[in-house]
Amino acid sequence: MNCRRCREAPAVIDIPHHQLSLCAPCFLKHCRDQVQRTIDAHKMLEPGERCLVAVSGGKDSLAVWDILLDLGYPADGVYLGLGIGEYSDASAERARGFAAKRGVRLIEVDLATELGFTIPEARGAGRSSCSACGLSKRHLLNRVALENGYRVLVTGHNLDDEVAVLFGNVMRWDLPYLARQYPTLPEREGFARRVKPLVRLSERETAAYCVIRGIDYIIDECPMAVGNKHLMYKELINALEEKQPGAKYHFFLGFLDRVHPRLEDVGEEDRAGLRPCVRCGSPTIAEVCAFCRLADRSRNKKARRRKRQRVAEEEAPGVPAGPGPSHPEPAGGSRAPHR
Amino acid sequence: MNCRRCREAPAVIDIPHHQLSLCAPCFLKHCRDQVQRTIDAHKMLEPGERCLVAVSGGKDSLAVWDILLDLGYPADGVYLGLGIGEYSDASAERARGFAAKRGVRLIEVDLATELGFTIPEARGAGRSSCSACGLSKRHLLNRVALENGYRVLVTGHNLDDEVAVLFGNVMRWDLPYLARQYPTLPEREGFARRVKPLVRLSERETAAYCVIRGIDYIIDECPMAVGNKHLMYKELINALEEKQPGAKYHFFLGFLDRVHPRLEDVGEEDRAGLRPCVRCGSPTIAEVCAFCRLADRSRNKKARRRKRQRVAEEEAPGVPAGPGPSHPEPAGGSRAPHR
Repeated sequence: MNCRRCREAPAVIDIPHHQLSLCAPCFLKHCRDQVQRTIDAHKMLEPGERCLVAVSGGKDSLAVWDILLDLGYPADGVYLGLGIGEYSDASAERARGFAAKRGVRLIEVDLATELGFTIPEARGAGRSSCSACGLSKRHLLNRVALENGYRVLVTGHNLDDEVAVLFGNVMRWDLPYLARQYPTLPEREGFARRVKPLVRLSERETAAYCVIRGIDYIIDECPMAVGNKHLMYKELINALEEKQPGAKYHFFLGFLDRVHPRLEDVGEEDRAGLRPCVRCGSPTIAEVCAFCRLADRSRNKKARRRKRQRVAEEEAPGVPAGPGPSHPEPAGGSRAPHR
Repeated sequence: MNCRRCREAPAVIDIPHHQLSLCAPCFLKHCRDQVQRTIDAHKMLEPGERCLVAVSGGKDSLAVWDILLDLGYPADGVYLGLGIGEYSDASAERARGFAAKRGVRLIEVDLATELGFTIPEARGAGRSSCSACGLSKRHLLNRVALENGYRVLVTGHNLDDEVAVLFGNVMRWDLPYLARQYPTLPEREGFARRVKPLVRLSERETAAYCVIRGIDYIIDECPMAVGNKHLMYKELINALEEKQPGAKYHFFLGFLDRVHPRLEDVGEEDRAGLRPCVRCGSPTIAEVCAFCRLADRSRNKKARRRKRQRVAEEEAPGVPAGPGPSHPEPAGGSRAPHR
């Protein structure tokens, strides 16, 4: 079948929710158009506005960085070293490789150096590892953006990510979370603007984009995410999408169009309760923000583990102390954290 | 394990969303309590108010009829003969058997006699058979209730039914449908009050109720429903429920509590556009209501088929005219409509 746009080259990908089959050049143009349309519709960036892209080394963050550069936005990248063993090593390589190839700046920040703990070390400190990771990334990315003078932080969340989060929030009818789920979160005291220009592109599309553009990205899922709720929701929604092509797209876009505006009061109430964290100054509804509490617990946990190790070494010199029940292996198991 | 209520008899069923395991007598009491609670919470019935139960012969409608009688509501039944072959025959027998056993009145209405067409004959007339069936049942049940002086029509929709409908409406964010999805639809000019007292009980619970009570119900799904969207949604949500017990219950109850009140304006707008159908007087947003249009199309379709048959018989006497493409077999295929 030939491309539905140019009618000349053979189609290489079909996009059921747009009823489109496209050749490679038309598909790349489609991706850029969708991103520009999203940026304009949700007032994400002024023309040519400088921004910082949160880069994981995966398909989505590298695709959004590539597209923003091609659309003429001076976009730099920030890579957080989460300390998840080989996975983090391989991710960092992809981020560095892309930055070098395009000749753009990549800021690198190491979680252990900045915060005193890695994501595997935060695990078991009152949150799931994915939740601890998300919270730490949001906090640290925002801090890096502000400290380096960026007013906008870009993330590579795609349609599938947003749909899975929306699905989870809808299943619980968590109205404050639903009110917060929007492709642009405006700049506020203590917060850079946060924008998600890929929300109209599915992960099939961002993967195809990287393949066609020859972008080397890390294909593996994070080993600590195996079996998490987000992936379970994705599977369920993919089963629906298979029966009703376009279901995801309409679920998400319908929410933004018709439901999100009805939750404005919830969002306002939510924001009205915020005050600066007494420790780090980030807006929070508590005295100490969720991130600072996580950081405390994680560092305490690490200190206790070190103490146990010292005691064990004193009691039986030369025998390494095994990980106790308070120090579970990351899901996926085989990769030990090395930082 | 012993019953969590009486702590004496062995438990026969567990109800994950209530974190309960119950013996048979405590389970029956639990079902009655849940129904009474639903009736009170949604102002379904005055104490001892007379009502008409729509009875299909399946577990849900017989369970709700049985529970209402035990709770002291003078409840009669109405059975609609839909003309779906053996399935309808078997359903009617169960409805009659229950009425005879409990010594209560069952009104029987035959679709073909009342409307001039059966559900298999309505198929292909611009709607899926399930949609045509739902529309016809709502119209005819309401008419029978009003003509027989009942102000309240009771249906046996259970938690799983409501969750599947809610899920479909949410996936499309169909706000008018969402605004209408409530366990009580109040009495209005031309409409009896419609109430769903089983919305807090899952289909596992209504089936267990019938088994324990020795109620003989038709177990088969309607052969025309095979592969419909409603069943597909049920499967998806059951997959979720398996991973997160209680997900269904909280999805539905959370909607009623926190989201439905936010859709009041949509419901009002929806009702403000209604006027009487010029043919049957039922409230509608069009000149002729959806039911009257379906009835026209179904009767026309039937007349055309009869004409084709006559022509074929005149051309080749003795050879029966086969069903053409405009007369598809019901889904499930093996059961031919016999009315």
